[in-house]
Amino acid sequence: MQQPRVSVIGASGYSGMELVRLLLGHYAVRLVAAGSDKWAGRAVEGSEDSVGGAIAYVPHTEAAAADADVFMLATPAEVSHELVPQLLARGARVVDLSGAYRLKNAATHVAAYGFEHKHASLLAEAVYGLPELDRTGQAKARLVANPGCYATAIQLALAPLVSAHAGPRIEVARGLFDWQRFVVDAMSGVTGAGRKATEDFSFAEVANDMRAYRVLRHQHTPEIEQGLMAASATLRDVRVTFVPHLLPIKRGILATCHAQLGDGATADDVARAFASAYKGERFIELAKSADDVALKDVVGTNKCRIGWSVGAQGEVVVVSAIDNLVKGAAGQAVQNVNLMFGLPEQAGVARLRSFHP
Amino acid sequence: MQQPRVSVIGASGYSGMELVRLLLGHYAVRLVAAGSDKWAGRAVEGSEDSVGGAIAYVPHTEAAAADADVFMLATPAEVSHELVPQLLARGARVVDLSGAYRLKNAATHVAAYGFEHKHASLLAEAVYGLPELDRTGQAKARLVANPGCYATAIQLALAPLVSAHAGPRIEVARGLFDWQRFVVDAMSGVTGAGRKATEDFSFAEVANDMRAYRVLRHQHTPEIEQGLMAASATLRDVRVTFVPHLLPIKRGILATCHAQLGDGATADDVARAFASAYKGERFIELAKSADDVALKDVVGTNKCRIGWSVGAQGEVVVVSAIDNLVKGAAGQAVQNVNLMFGLPEQAGVARLRSFHP
Amino acid sequence: MQQPRVSVIGASGYSGMELVRLLLGHYAVRLVAAGSDKWAGRAVEGSEDSVGGAIAYVPHTEAAAADADVFMLATPAEVSHELVPQLLARGARVVDLSGAYRLKNAATHVAAYGFEHKHASLLAEAVYGLPELDRTGQAKARLVANPGCYATAIQLALAPLVSAHAGPRIEVARGLFDWQRFVVDAMSGVTGAGRKATEDFSFAEVANDMRAYRVLRHQHTPEIEQGLMAASATLRDVRVTFVPHLLPIKRGILATCHAQLGDGATADDVARAFASAYKGERFIELAKSADDVALKDVVGTNKCRIGWSVGAQGEVVVVSAIDNLVKGAAGQAVQNVNLMFGLPEQAGVARLRSFHP
Amino acid sequence: MQQPRVSVIGASGYSGMELVRLLLGHYAVRLVAAGSDKWAGRAVEGSEDSVGGAIAYVPHTEAAAADADVFMLATPAEVSHELVPQLLARGARVVDLSGAYRLKNAATHVAAYGFEHKHASLLAEAVYGLPELDRTGQAKARLVANPGCYATAIQLALAPLVSAHAGPRIEVARGLFDWQRFVVDAMSGVTGAGRKATEDFSFAEVANDMRAYRVLRHQHTPEIEQGLMAASATLRDVRVTFVPHLLPIKRGILATCHAQLGDGATADDVARAFASAYKGERFIELAKSADDVALKDVVGTNKCRIGWSVGAQGEVVVVSAIDNLVKGAAGQAVQNVNLMFGLPEQAGVARLRSFHP
Repeated sequence: MQQPRVSVIGASGYSGMELVRLLLGHYAVRLVAAGSDKWAGRAVEGSEDSVGGAIAYVPHTEAAAADADVFMLATPAEVSHELVPQLLARGARVVDLSGAYRLKNAATHVAAYGFEHKHASLLAEAVYGLPELDRTGQAKARLVANPGCYATAIQLALAPLVSAHAGPRIEVARGLFDWQRFVVDAMSGVTGAGRKATEDFSFAEVANDMRAYRVLRHQHTPEIEQGLMAASATLRDVRVTFVPHLLPIKRGILATCHAQLGDGATADDVARAFASAYKGERFIELAKSADDVALKDVVGTNKCRIGWSVGAQGEVVVVSAIDNLVKGAAGQAVQNVNLMFGLPEQAGVARLRSFHP
Repeated sequence: MQQPRVSVIGASGYSGMELVRLLLGHYAVRLVAAGSDKWAGRAVEGSEDSVGGAIAYVPHTEAAAADADVFMLATPAEVSHELVPQLLARGARVVDLSGAYRLKNAATHVAAYGFEHKHASLLAEAVYGLPELDRTGQAKARLVANPGCYATAIQLALAPLVSAHAGPRIEVARGLFDWQRFVVDAMSGVTGAGRKATEDFSFAEVANDMRAYRVLRHQHTPEIEQGLMAASATLRDVRVTFVPHLLPIKRGILATCHAQLGDGATADDVARAFASAYKGERFIELAKSADDVALKDVVGTNKCRIGWSVGAQGEVVVVSAIDNLVKGAAGQAVQNVNLMFGLPEQAGVARLRSFHP
Repeated sequence: MQQPRVSVIGASGYSGMELVRLLLGHYAVRLVAAGSDKWAGRAVEGSEDSVGGAIAYVPHTEAAAADADVFMLATPAEVSHELVPQLLARGARVVDLSGAYRLKNAATHVAAYGFEHKHASLLAEAVYGLPELDRTGQAKARLVANPGCYATAIQLALAPLVSAHAGPRIEVARGLFDWQRFVVDAMSGVTGAGRKATEDFSFAEVANDMRAYRVLRHQHTPEIEQGLMAASATLRDVRVTFVPHLLPIKRGILATCHAQLGDGATADDVARAFASAYKGERFIELAKSADDVALKDVVGTNKCRIGWSVGAQGEVVVVSAIDNLVKGAAGQAVQNVNLMFGLPEQAGVARLRSFHP
Repeated sequence: MQQPRVSVIGASGYSGMELVRLLLGHYAVRLVAAGSDKWAGRAVEGSEDSVGGAIAYVPHTEAAAADADVFMLATPAEVSHELVPQLLARGARVVDLSGAYRLKNAATHVAAYGFEHKHASLLAEAVYGLPELDRTGQAKARLVANPGCYATAIQLALAPLVSAHAGPRIEVARGLFDWQRFVVDAMSGVTGAGRKATEDFSFAEVANDMRAYRVLRHQHTPEIEQGLMAASATLRDVRVTFVPHLLPIKRGILATCHAQLGDGATADDVARAFASAYKGERFIELAKSADDVALKDVVGTNKCRIGWSVGAQGEVVVVSAIDNLVKGAAGQAVQNVNLMFGLPEQAGVARLRSFHP
């Protein structure tokens, strides 16, 4: 097969930078364009050694007009919202890293993102690309909505618990949990907010500090709830109380998730749920306990590391960790492109090294 | 009244250092001894300008033998456990910053601290010194157990919610909450673990990292539950699911606490509970919402800043922040000494400056 | 004497914030206005307990019109340049924390600050306020130019070496050094650059990074050279090769300064020079060696800590450390106000606590 | 050619960890043993995908007895000192990352490392492996002494300036500099000190702090002087005043180096010296000026980035930056192994990604 030609739009944001770097190290795709108005004209570092050969950044419009098989959009949701239908209309395929096409319900979308969605049929068509939960749709998808960073960490932590069906990947005992409501406190490094030229994100304000933000109103909340209901055959009212926090570090998300065992369920059931759900998953690392999950285990890699502990009262704490720019953005997008074009899913992301020490 | 003479034991740990600094800046107490085997012989910086005059660090045993009105112990729990009865036997009063005398139940103590408690009558006698929840006992106390850092932040965040009695300080509507179980994820800077000469606490391992630890088995959990039941007139089975996290910063605790409104209760009830509980409290700062609480607001000060948000499903998120070494240790200990000796409660801690920027 | 009434202009910058906090804790001055367009209307935290009583921030123009004995300007150099003559014309006295009135030579000023100086006679009149080097002029000064942060750390490190006269404060052997050229590499935390809403100063760009900047062209270079020549009775061509670096921390300057012993001079001469120059200086701490100076010793305090080491080839390394916002800005400005109004020089800054841990 | 079999000894130190990771990603070498007493028995993460296949850590003695073509020693100097002759005696080749075999003069060695050198003939035989300065000896070397981290950054910054000969790689005009003495202030992240379980290297002591250490007595000083004299055809008394500093970051070295132009030399001569010295060097990046070199450009990569600025008085400031664990240790060691075995020099290190953001 010919190597898919990829155009990245939004190449100078943090997710876009990561995406370009991953694609340049990917033996089976050709990066044909990297769009950044800010860096237009500048050489793309490392491209001289890549499959596609040396290229320079081009303006966004030029990257959008490139002769590519797939466009990867690391653009704000508003920009993706406009751009996706135009690219699809030209017969291209798209992986969108923004939140523009993640939610199935247009009304929920408005509430989460603050702008009306004009392309409801594309919301319906878009394949939500979290491969460890569902990798069946990407191969034929025109449009893949790449999950949010928090949404990835939290769904991977909780999906084995909500899943009660006996599908091919996730087999969990019925009735494992007696409520459909989860409490999640998650913490993200500041690159999760993208490049920022504001006082609030200046070093002098962020260093040594920590805070919660968008408490009970983060835009990933409906995405997580939608994903958990999809992971379950039966649950129809999953609710997540989600509190995001800003950490004084550059990369990494740690999500601490709380659930409650159902009557008769045990710690062994939880262990079985995780083992079964993630058997053979290359990018999932199951830890010994909730204490055994640290950001340094995953930052720089495409892994999600997950550990859990069960208390005497049936309380379940699941901690998951990812690199927000890799498994939470660019790395997962590469998995999706691989699935779309029939490449090995791990191509280009399997050998990423941890940033520790 | 004569100025109380204070001896600090454990003066070279982080809490002990903070205590010495606060006492040197306190106009109404005399620091007569600062015990540190490690620094014995070295001058106590700043003591030359203090009420008590220039002193040098002395070995622990010497500080324990000092002619003092009150001994402040910043020693490990095992050391305090032994030392407290000896000091009391000599007729002195004691403020213990360790966990040795905080729990009323000796069996709970063993489970939390890992050693048998030999002085159960002192457990019963000790006054738990969290002044904003109860400042009635210190004046006559021989022994004040100074609260733990996490325990301070979390009790101050949740006590107004559990309290259903109409006591002098806390007036909360009956039935505000429909469960007695709280979920708390809290994060602490590394000084909370004390001075550490271990690889796990080395800069290269901690920087840029984050993790949960002692999940569902932190020794402050029973202290928090005991305190919340004490704050309530009626609740007898308060349970807290507590997950502590290690933050890559030096100082500060942020506690994110989850509760659920009872039938008919509203966000206004929550606001009233906090307003009523903390009216006139100098060291409590009520914020506009759960988003409005940052470590930098409190680090370096004796304040606890508290904000809350209430969701559409009745979920309540309370975020509190303190400096673990001040309000979570040394500053609160100074409040307790002030109460013990009839000094203004805020003396020596009111004017502390924030470390921001 | 009546307490001097102080108005601060530029109260929401980092130096201005620090200045306000110090003045609120100063028993002998009255803060009558704190000017900040950004925070106008907001209460000044802590003012309720201060000598001057509760105040709110006011717009800059209002602070400039206040009925004050002295105006302290924490404004950009261009703003101070305009404002100073207006305030002096009204009969007020001024301490300017900017660089607008520090250089005696107007041509040098243009080169350093990039704007023409319209008030050359005020340049001549301004007293350069580095008390440890010269505290004779402040008492009668209308205008005190408060030194720059780097300039403070570096002059305090090198002045004893250049000084060959036998003045009242600094007595150093003649001919101690055989060149008049010094090499200085200094590093500053990011608050030294003021509040920044730029991508370059965002957390994600600054954390874990370090770089040199304004190499050989920093605006403090002529200030340092001017100061060292003033400290010497005879040297007329002192040159400093100065390379500033940006550190990924919030506060603190460390300056590593290189000199060379003259013929026959010894390490003992260096020690004598420092001992003699700084005898009795409350805010100077002489360390055992150049290794014995750490930012944590001084951050939060008004101290300058200085250590030196002399090599076998006569090379001299002097390391000095200050808090850039205290001894490098607001704390030194308070010393100057104290000197201007006959108050004890250390009032309001003697008891500042270290931020460590 | 058969793939060289490599055994790493000291695999759980930071340099050793980095070395193992690099070797696992190297397509043309086989990692046959990774020696770590601490981790013995544990699987080597990532080895399952490597050329050599899955392996587990083994005790040091076992790694030293492995059937390998080359042993890479990431052990303390004392350990390497003993081990190298034993390994050579068995007919193996060795790359030693410690300082044990770097200095040619045994007396200088004792002064720098504090222990007598028993194998002077091996000191003489060892090839100093800084490929960009000399890559002629590695192909036939039995023993390569891998340079120190500071020594790498500083020699690469200054060698073009001292070199006055017209050798194959470095051509610089005669008489470019009028002294042979350089002043260098360099700063290193804490991994440069190796794994530390001491209070001094604990997070609470290092974070937000900075200091100079081993001022004028760092063990890399003679290595740098020896290397610069070797790089020059004629200079016989190069002296470097070297002050290392500890930075509160994990990785990276920035070296700020000071020199002085000779009579008649110009900034253009400096530019020519660097351009000529490093033409075609894959791992050297020449920047626009001394301001244009940041740690984030190089951390995670095998690059050395170098920029310089020349002042009006002929002062020259050269700033260089490397990752202390890659170009300053493991990455350079891989270059040396490649040269020893006739592999492309950049194999295994060319595609390393920056850790920024």
